[in-house]
Amino acid sequence: MHILWIALSLSERVVRAFLEPRSVAVIGASREPHKVGHVILRNILNSGFRGKVYPINPHADKILGLKCYPKITDVPDDVDIAIIAVPARIVPEVVEDCGKKNVPLIVVISAGFKETGPEGARLEKEIVNIAHRYGSRIVGPNCLGIMNLSRGLNATFSAITPKCGNIGLISQSGAIITALIDLAAKYGFGFSKVISLGNKADLDEVDFLKILEQDRETSIIIMYIESIERGREFIRIARQVVREKPLIVLKAGLTSRGARAVSSHTGSLAGSAQVYETALRQAGAVQVYTFRELVSALLFFSRYADVVRKLEQVEVVIVTNAGGPGIIATDLCERAGVELSSLDPELVQELRSRLPPAAALHNPVDVLGDATPERYVTVLERILARPYVSGVIVIATPQAMTNPPLLAEKLIDIARRFPEKMVVPVLLGGVSMKDAQEKLVEAGVPAFSCIEDAVSVFSMSSRYVKYRKRLAEIERVKEKYIMLDVEEIKTVIERAREEGRRVLLLHEAFEIMNIIGVPTPEGGFARSPEEAVKIAEKVGYPVVLRVVSPDILHKSDIGCVKVGLATPDEVRHAFYEIMERATRYMPHARIYGIHVSKMVKGHYEVIVGATRDPQFGPVVLFGLGGVYVELYRDVSMRVAPITELEAEEMIYETKIGTIMRGYRGSRPVNIRNIVDVIYRISLLMTQVEDILELDINPLIVSENSVYAVDVKILVR
Amino acid sequence: MHILWIALSLSERVVRAFLEPRSVAVIGASREPHKVGHVILRNILNSGFRGKVYPINPHADKILGLKCYPKITDVPDDVDIAIIAVPARIVPEVVEDCGKKNVPLIVVISAGFKETGPEGARLEKEIVNIAHRYGSRIVGPNCLGIMNLSRGLNATFSAITPKCGNIGLISQSGAIITALIDLAAKYGFGFSKVISLGNKADLDEVDFLKILEQDRETSIIIMYIESIERGREFIRIARQVVREKPLIVLKAGLTSRGARAVSSHTGSLAGSAQVYETALRQAGAVQVYTFRELVSALLFFSRYADVVRKLEQVEVVIVTNAGGPGIIATDLCERAGVELSSLDPELVQELRSRLPPAAALHNPVDVLGDATPERYVTVLERILARPYVSGVIVIATPQAMTNPPLLAEKLIDIARRFPEKMVVPVLLGGVSMKDAQEKLVEAGVPAFSCIEDAVSVFSMSSRYVKYRKRLAEIERVKEKYIMLDVEEIKTVIERAREEGRRVLLLHEAFEIMNIIGVPTPEGGFARSPEEAVKIAEKVGYPVVLRVVSPDILHKSDIGCVKVGLATPDEVRHAFYEIMERATRYMPHARIYGIHVSKMVKGHYEVIVGATRDPQFGPVVLFGLGGVYVELYRDVSMRVAPITELEAEEMIYETKIGTIMRGYRGSRPVNIRNIVDVIYRISLLMTQVEDILELDINPLIVSENSVYAVDVKILVR
Repeated sequence: MHILWIALSLSERVVRAFLEPRSVAVIGASREPHKVGHVILRNILNSGFRGKVYPINPHADKILGLKCYPKITDVPDDVDIAIIAVPARIVPEVVEDCGKKNVPLIVVISAGFKETGPEGARLEKEIVNIAHRYGSRIVGPNCLGIMNLSRGLNATFSAITPKCGNIGLISQSGAIITALIDLAAKYGFGFSKVISLGNKADLDEVDFLKILEQDRETSIIIMYIESIERGREFIRIARQVVREKPLIVLKAGLTSRGARAVSSHTGSLAGSAQVYETALRQAGAVQVYTFRELVSALLFFSRYADVVRKLEQVEVVIVTNAGGPGIIATDLCERAGVELSSLDPELVQELRSRLPPAAALHNPVDVLGDATPERYVTVLERILARPYVSGVIVIATPQAMTNPPLLAEKLIDIARRFPEKMVVPVLLGGVSMKDAQEKLVEAGVPAFSCIEDAVSVFSMSSRYVKYRKRLAEIERVKEKYIMLDVEEIKTVIERAREEGRRVLLLHEAFEIMNIIGVPTPEGGFARSPEEAVKIAEKVGYPVVLRVVSPDILHKSDIGCVKVGLATPDEVRHAFYEIMERATRYMPHARIYGIHVSKMVKGHYEVIVGATRDPQFGPVVLFGLGGVYVELYRDVSMRVAPITELEAEEMIYETKIGTIMRGYRGSRPVNIRNIVDVIYRISLLMTQVEDILELDINPLIVSENSVYAVDVKILVR
Repeated sequence: MHILWIALSLSERVVRAFLEPRSVAVIGASREPHKVGHVILRNILNSGFRGKVYPINPHADKILGLKCYPKITDVPDDVDIAIIAVPARIVPEVVEDCGKKNVPLIVVISAGFKETGPEGARLEKEIVNIAHRYGSRIVGPNCLGIMNLSRGLNATFSAITPKCGNIGLISQSGAIITALIDLAAKYGFGFSKVISLGNKADLDEVDFLKILEQDRETSIIIMYIESIERGREFIRIARQVVREKPLIVLKAGLTSRGARAVSSHTGSLAGSAQVYETALRQAGAVQVYTFRELVSALLFFSRYADVVRKLEQVEVVIVTNAGGPGIIATDLCERAGVELSSLDPELVQELRSRLPPAAALHNPVDVLGDATPERYVTVLERILARPYVSGVIVIATPQAMTNPPLLAEKLIDIARRFPEKMVVPVLLGGVSMKDAQEKLVEAGVPAFSCIEDAVSVFSMSSRYVKYRKRLAEIERVKEKYIMLDVEEIKTVIERAREEGRRVLLLHEAFEIMNIIGVPTPEGGFARSPEEAVKIAEKVGYPVVLRVVSPDILHKSDIGCVKVGLATPDEVRHAFYEIMERATRYMPHARIYGIHVSKMVKGHYEVIVGATRDPQFGPVVLFGLGGVYVELYRDVSMRVAPITELEAEEMIYETKIGTIMRGYRGSRPVNIRNIVDVIYRISLLMTQVEDILELDINPLIVSENSVYAVDVKILVR
């Protein structure tokens, strides 16, 4: 079932049915005004849809003046979209009819499926199976419906039909849609497409991303999701989308870490929330965390999406009539990573000659409390004429000379005169600012009543522009794709499995490292003190002894690692001590023996790890190593496979990366060696599905070498 | 001048003049309606003030129906408050008159003082001097004025007079006041007192904190500040205030780090913003960062200040009619540290029997999309009856059955029935929620349109309750105050000064450590390799060699520290190598010789440091030590002097503190030893003014001992 569902790609027919619907049938259309089947039909009729509309109801002749058909198969013409609003138990039958009628897109409004328990889940699978048999696709069930406002189609039971606009909205929560539409009505912004995903039994956010990518009427996509099942596909499609359109995502449910027990450092560091954050960033999507940010995004991008899409960088100037709010805005920009322009000396000179002497002429520009709207204009038109300025935050507090209504008019005019710049007013106040606020929003200028809203939309723009640039860079780099000796690796894994072990022994893990080309120290496996001494003599002192046991994962925590052993006696003594400690602290552990390896000295201890996320698949991790890795969490992550450029980025995103560059007299090392290890681990995880989790901790790093001195591998 | 200004305490006369004004004079009262002197007079007359009002203007007989006096000295009765709105240059003369008239409180509205340059600053000092000569005190200059709304007095030139309420507002920005008042008019909340601080030439935020502490009409204080000059006094007074009243502070200008050059780790870690954050928390003040949070605080505390004041802890339940917003709210609460109640099984059972089967019964409680206002009530009255629940976030999205106006009524009723609980509705939507929102706010129930606003007010409440509890605990602990041998310490410092050094040599710093009782390793100062060997032989191998130079602050950065030297030869070799490196990397440094000390082994390297902040005085710091201290910034701070309890808190606030407790098999150490060092450094900084900065880095920590192995001290 699962396989079939993934394998089914979006047909052109389905895409066209959604983007260019010519006919819609409402199955379960009702004459009773409060019923969902009535509301949907009425919405379709009232929203300006020019195609044909067919109410389906075996017990009625006419509804809302339209001829009614008993079944969809009775409709004489083709139907592009069928909206189903009948009780859950008869949905299978109705879907079957839709299939027979060859309807490409079926929207199941009805509830009573997976959300109610196992019986509902079974029913849900059934309707998907039926639809797929006919090549039909399903939206929902348990959803609000869909809107294609570019075609005047509101096929939802929302009480309000929003205006047509440039925003594509995809949401896993119907309530979020109704709340946003309600706000849209207040602020007057519009949508191109609205999709309520419901239970996502068939079509999901990835499918609709694909569709909206092709949609010329959509210039920005806003998404509310609680989960992404096809994580890797999401990343792939999103990366295509964001080349042209900003993608803003609110992912809810960040604090739940999933119930899966993890046994490696990487597994515990790469919790669900962290992987989502990583994956969204990798996908080029701008992540937001609050409903308010969504609203601000709607207000802002409905006006400036096309401006942002063309930008190469985002730089902002703050203009204010009060010092305090200017300082607050500066603080917030700095915290949000929004770059403030340095004004050129010529501009400062120009401003100086036109403003009172007490005015502050650097960013933020303080036009003073007695500023008239004209003074704002004088300043703004000069600032916006600078090519390096991409936008302005215009703060106004209610003062004697402010004249908010006139200021609003002037700002509308300024925004019109500089169509390629982002003009974002912030009117701080209540009663005296109300009219001005409304006037601005009506004219399409996103005016906020709080500074942080303005800062948040500039932060989104700035992140979008940065992500898009970085993705372009990554794509430019030709990727070398090494094929690992998968068979040999599988042989090692198979051997462990035959012994009933899911955790590889240290020497087995070293074997895999050697196969994929990650350096490990010389050494071997010893069953007695004398064997240990023999190996030590061979590789040369000093050596390190580590217990070999599939049951002891954090060896150093219980003193089962001994380092710096310089003589045969020390080796013997350490052998006994480790054995004694292992049996004392882990009396039920299987102890295979002791691993002896040449002690490697280096400057830094880092961790390179990997885990397999249920949604996004293999994830690689890099960071500060050693025993405190989980405490300092100085790590970076990527969904694999990654390019070498991304591996390098991962290193520089961490503090230990900064140190290894040669921070404050620390010794710089050749980063290429670490890049290579991360890159090879990414390949390993991509090519060998059987490996679930992997920790190289520590990877010991010197100027010109790296050694994986301890490696944990957990297999399926 | 500065000294006098600090020494002048608030007299009872001044406090009473502000809290219980019987008469106000407006100097510069004008007949022209647009002039400030007219607006203020009109505001006083229109705001319901019952005392006497005297317009002062030599060129008018009557203004607004009141008899006018040529000079304030002509007024027959006593004047409590004089408002001055005349040009800056004649303010000194007018203040002199006020002094002669024995006016306790003078509010200088006029601009043209410090904000205009050195000449204005001189004028500003002059008027303060004049006032102080007569025992009068000044608010401003360059301010909006003051309001005492409990007495019906609006002595500002604000266009709007807000309602009387329970909020005391102190602001360094007049624009923030006008913006908040404008919003207050919209939302209908009121203020007890409003103070525009202006240039703070005389009275400042500390004085008004003291006054508002005594004011029975004020149950919550909101403060906007850009700087606090009397930092230590602020902490002292704020700590008193927050025993009874929440104090919410927006400190603007956090990103500026001040221009002072710093030479120690502590100095660079304890930047201005960090010290402000530390100090505000220590003072028990709740710090916020945005204007929006201020507005939310006003809305919330105007209703719930008295509820919050009585709480011992804050626990919240989320009730929602949509899953998505419920998840977002949960995420935000977790991020903000707002505790969500676990509902008791009995309550869950009660809810189960009253809600549809699909409802979610744990926190967040999902009453489902078809919830009627009655269903909300059913759930809320049961939840609010639980003693452990201190408040609810009630989320409503616009759905078919929501009926927002009725829901508003029901929520108003619920809030009335549970006066000791915090009911905070969040109405997500625009048009359909507008009336309900207004209805709620009008009835005094703080209703928000965004989830994060509700979360932010609960976060403020929760922080307030925690801080207050902690302060009470700190006060309960009897403090032992050790007097250090200050004279002996000063002798060491004097010796360095005589040699023209501001940085103490290592053995001098060790001397001071020994005086105050901080352990240092055995060792001594060597001028030749042979002297070094002699010391090494005496203290025992292995030893550490460190260059002794007042010019080399970060010794290890340039390889001028050699550790683990085990033989005379190694010591000799290290001696030469250090000398060679020092002269190579720092050719102009004065090299005194080499310090030899016994090598101390331990489990952890921490830093204990101190610096002197221009506003808050001595600040102590604790954290992860070693060379990467500034990179990982795993540090905590306190304004000194601190109690031992606070020193312990400092340790546990850091990650290294967690490790030293015995994290994941790490060795636990006796924390008392570190507490003692931090405590003694706090004493040192408090008792010896001459020490500007101090770094013990590292302090080496073992199970039962600590050693300061490297100490830097910078003196005045």
